[in-house]
This record gives sequence, C-alpha cells and structure tokens, in this order.
Amino acid sequence: MLVYEGKAKRLYETEDPDVLRVEYKDSATAFNGVKKAEIEGKGQLNNEISSLIFKRLAEKGVKSHFIRKISEREQLVRRVEIISLEVVVRNVVAGSLAKRLGLEEGTPVGQPVVEFYYKKDELGDPLITEDHVRILGIASSEDLQFLRKQALAVNESLKALFAEIGVRLVDFKLEFGRGRDGAILLADEISPDTCRLWDLATNEKLDKDVFRRDLGSLTEVYQEILNRLRGDISHV
Amino acid sequence: MLVYEGKAKRLYETEDPDVLRVEYKDSATAFNGVKKAEIEGKGQLNNEISSLIFKRLAEKGVKSHFIRKISEREQLVRRVEIISLEVVVRNVVAGSLAKRLGLEEGTPVGQPVVEFYYKKDELGDPLITEDHVRILGIASSEDLQFLRKQALAVNESLKALFAEIGVRLVDFKLEFGRGRDGAILLADEISPDTCRLWDLATNEKLDKDVFRRDLGSLTEVYQEILNRLRGDISHV
Ligand SMILES: Nc1ncnc2c1ncn2[C@@H]1O[C@H](COP(=O)(O)OP(=O)(O)O)[C@@H](O)[C@H]1O
Ligand SMILES: Nc1ncnc2c1ncn2[C@@H]1O[C@H](COP(=O)(O)OP(=O)(O)O)[C@@H](O)[C@H]1O
Ligand SMILES: [Mg+2]
Ligand SMILES: [Mg+2]
Repeated sequence: MLVYEGKAKRLYETEDPDVLRVEYKDSATAFNGVKKAEIEGKGQLNNEISSLIFKRLAEKGVKSHFIRKISEREQLVRRVEIISLEVVVRNVVAGSLAKRLGLEEGTPVGQPVVEFYYKKDELGDPLITEDHVRILGIASSEDLQFLRKQALAVNESLKALFAEIGVRLVDFKLEFGRGRDGAILLADEISPDTCRLWDLATNEKLDKDVFRRDLGSLTEVYQEILNRLRGDISHV
Repeated sequence: MLVYEGKAKRLYETEDPDVLRVEYKDSATAFNGVKKAEIEGKGQLNNEISSLIFKRLAEKGVKSHFIRKISEREQLVRRVEIISLEVVVRNVVAGSLAKRLGLEEGTPVGQPVVEFYYKKDELGDPLITEDHVRILGIASSEDLQFLRKQALAVNESLKALFAEIGVRLVDFKLEFGRGRDGAILLADEISPDTCRLWDLATNEKLDKDVFRRDLGSLTEVYQEILNRLRGDISHV
C-alpha cells in the first residue's frame, strides 16, 4: 500500500510494519516544485547512488534507515517518523547561502557549517535557528546536538568518499527520523539531488544544479557520479 | 558635517571626533523602504522616547552610546563603528517570525529568543546563524556571546520598564558598535520604530505596526507611549 508520494519518491508499506519500500521516481523538481520535469533514468540512477552511499556510510559506522536495494528503482528501508528538519552541511558557499550572504559561490566556509531548515513546503522550507526548533517543538536541544554531530560525521565520511573519486563535496541535505524505539536514524536519500558535487579538477557541476540552471544533461552527470562511485576510475 | 543619512535619522560630526549629533527625521519607512511616508512629529517623539529609554537603561547598568538630548529632534551620542547585525530579541511570536514558522501572532516563545539579522539593505536584512556571522567576518564568537548576553539584559530591563506602564514588550531590534577603544556599546535607537509594544490590557498595538498595517495614527500611539514613560499614569 502507498503510504506517501513525494516529489522524488514513493513509499510503500511491506508485510513488516517497520519496513518500507521506497520507489525512486523519474521526476526532477526544483525551487520548491516550481520547475518540474520527467527525466528517464533519473530514478534508477538515484536509487543506485543512494544505496551505494548508504552502504559506504554503514561501513564507516554511520547507521541509516537503509536495508537493501531490491530492484533497479527500489530499496527497503526502516520506517521512521521523519523529523521536520532539513539538516544542511556546507563546506563551500553555494546556492541559497551565496544569495543570503551576498558571497561568491565557491567561497570556502572554514569549519563546516550545519544549518537547520524547517521542512514545510507551504513555508518554502525556511532557515530556522535552534531556538525556533524549540518553539516549534520539533526536537529537543539534545536531539539537535545529536543531529549536528551526526551531520558532521556524515560530512567527514562523504568528503573522503567523494575526494577519492575526484569530486568536491560542496554541500548536502540530510533528513533524520525516529524509529519505533525512539532512536534517531539517518533517513531519506543521499544523491546528486541532495548534494552539490563539483569536479575537483574542472569545477564542473555534477549534481541537480545541472537541472536547476539548465547546464546540460542531468542523467549524464548522475551517471558519471555512479560510474566513479562504482570504481570506474576513467576520470583519473 | 553630515556623516550619514539613513531612513530615520541623520548623523552629524561635532567638534569632538568621538561624538556625533543624531537628528531624528519625520520619515516612516517599512518593508525595507518599500512603504514610505513623512509623519510630522514622529522625529521628535522618537528622539524623546529613545533618550528616555537609554537614560533608564543606564540607571539599570546598561551602557549605551547615548550622551544627552540637546533639542527636540537631536541627541549627542558616542561615535561607534556599527556592527552589521540587527540583534532581535523576542518574547512573543509576531511579524516575520510568525510568517517564518507559520505560527499565530501572540504565541509565547518560552525563554526569550535572540536572533541575528545581517544588516544589509540590498540583501533584505536576512536572518543568519552564528556560523554565517563567522563566515562574513562580522564578529567573533566571543563578540556574539557578548551581544547575546547584552541583548538579554536589555530585554529584562525593558520588559520591566514597559510592564510598569501597562505595555507588553513583544520584540525589539538592537544595534551595537565598537568605540575607539574597541569596546562594544549599545547604539542606534530604541523606540516604537524598533520595538513591538502591545497594550497589556487590550493588546492594542502601540508601535510601528500601526504604520506598517494601516491601523491608525502613528503619532497618537507614539505619544501614548511617551506619556506613559513620562509617568503620566492616566492609562491605569
Ligand atoms: N525511512 C523513512 N521512513 C518514513 N519516511 C521517510 C523515510 N525516508 C524518507 N522519508 C520521507 O519520505 C518522503 C520521500 O519522498 P520525497 O519524494 O523525497 O518527498 P518530498 O517531496 O517531501 O521531498 C519524504 O517526505 C521523506 O521525509
Ligand atoms: N553611535 C553611532 N555611531 C555611528 N553610527 C551609528 C550610531 N548609532 C547609530 N548609527 C547608525 O546610524 C544610522 C542611523 O540612521 P537610520 O536612519 O536608522 O539608518 P538606516 O536607514 O540604516 O536604518 C544607522 O545606520 C545606524 O547603524
Ligand atoms: Mg525529498
Ligand atoms: Mg535604522
């Protein structure tokens, strides 16, 4: 049974109440759904990339909802109650932060920055502070400390993973949820839809900005990321 | 000599290089200058209210740039290098926070909230985090701790001051600057232009929202605040 249909994925129940089946769609959306397209192959690419990344993170000790990939477009995940926050980590100024601060894209930020956005489409996913999280009653201050720590740990793992394949991890968005036992688990997806990835040598964008800014073929760059992650070292 | 003309005030140099003369204008602006009007009497009212408040704060141990009121529209202040932050303290949800979080105006926030906005008209004075302040190089993390502490101390003093005259201090904006010796000083103004003030009994708005939202005569409610501050206790 379909539990939820979002912009990029569908969630289905399975026989196990604690397990969901995630189906990655071919839809691309940007600017809070204002720009949309169907792009054949995108769902499959993101499913494979996300599965691969969650597996690598598990090897490095970062637990997530990911159980296993079961088909080209599908994976099984632990069901969680999603915390209504987008946890963003930034290593380099880009996107909305460049606009917010009036800084050039590409400016390094020094120590990695963690930001919290309120996951609420009607409000346009606004930036919020830790006090705002408290007012909204979304998470305790201990939870926030945990999310921050986890997000920074994911950043360290992903930075290393991407550096190995000649890619700079500029920024990315994480979602977390609470499992039945109350423990907080990394959830959702990690893919070129949710990361900014720049080629280390050329600065070429290898992520959803290709779609947002009409810079070329989305599937070509997502395929390039997948090839590199798979160990196809043709890029060196 | 005119040093700076802003939306609400003009700054002039004096014979003393460390002292400026501030002239309060009759201009009212809102929404980053999009809504404008000239309102006779506003400059004088804000000069008197701001002078009175800075004096009361000094009595309670909060130092500011304020030296003394020298005419109906003018005061002398210590010259500082303004820190490009608007430091906002909130006791109740209102204005942009109600919009940002999708909460009803009037919702209490629990512990007072301190927010930092980047004072930059071209960018629309965006909300920023402490990490963003660091990236911009505006203030050190020790400075931010100091600003937060000072802002909360001002809040305690102002809350008490306004409670005595039957007014709820909903939120307010402060600016700080560095004096010649490097010490950080409370600066700018504290007036119904920079505070949200609601009548404790009736919830009537006694601040610039009267202008922003076309709720009546600005000078009438500013005069009411001034009368009450002066100890005219007709409101009880
Ligand atoms: N393990 C999980 N359990 C429950 N919900 C999840 C899990 N992982 C992700 N989700 C949620 O499922 C939805 C995924 O679909 P997506 O198309 O990305 O949605 P959206 O349009 O809201 O971004 C998101 O709302 C996400 O928060
Ligand atoms: N003591 C001070 N020394 C120097 N500048 C000050 C001082 N107090 C306030 N200012 C600055 O002077 C200007 C006051 O004018 P205002 O009309 O409020 O300007 P704005 O349109 O920028 O808000 C502001 O930019 C404020 O930061
Ligand atoms: Mg999503
Ligand atoms: Mg001003």
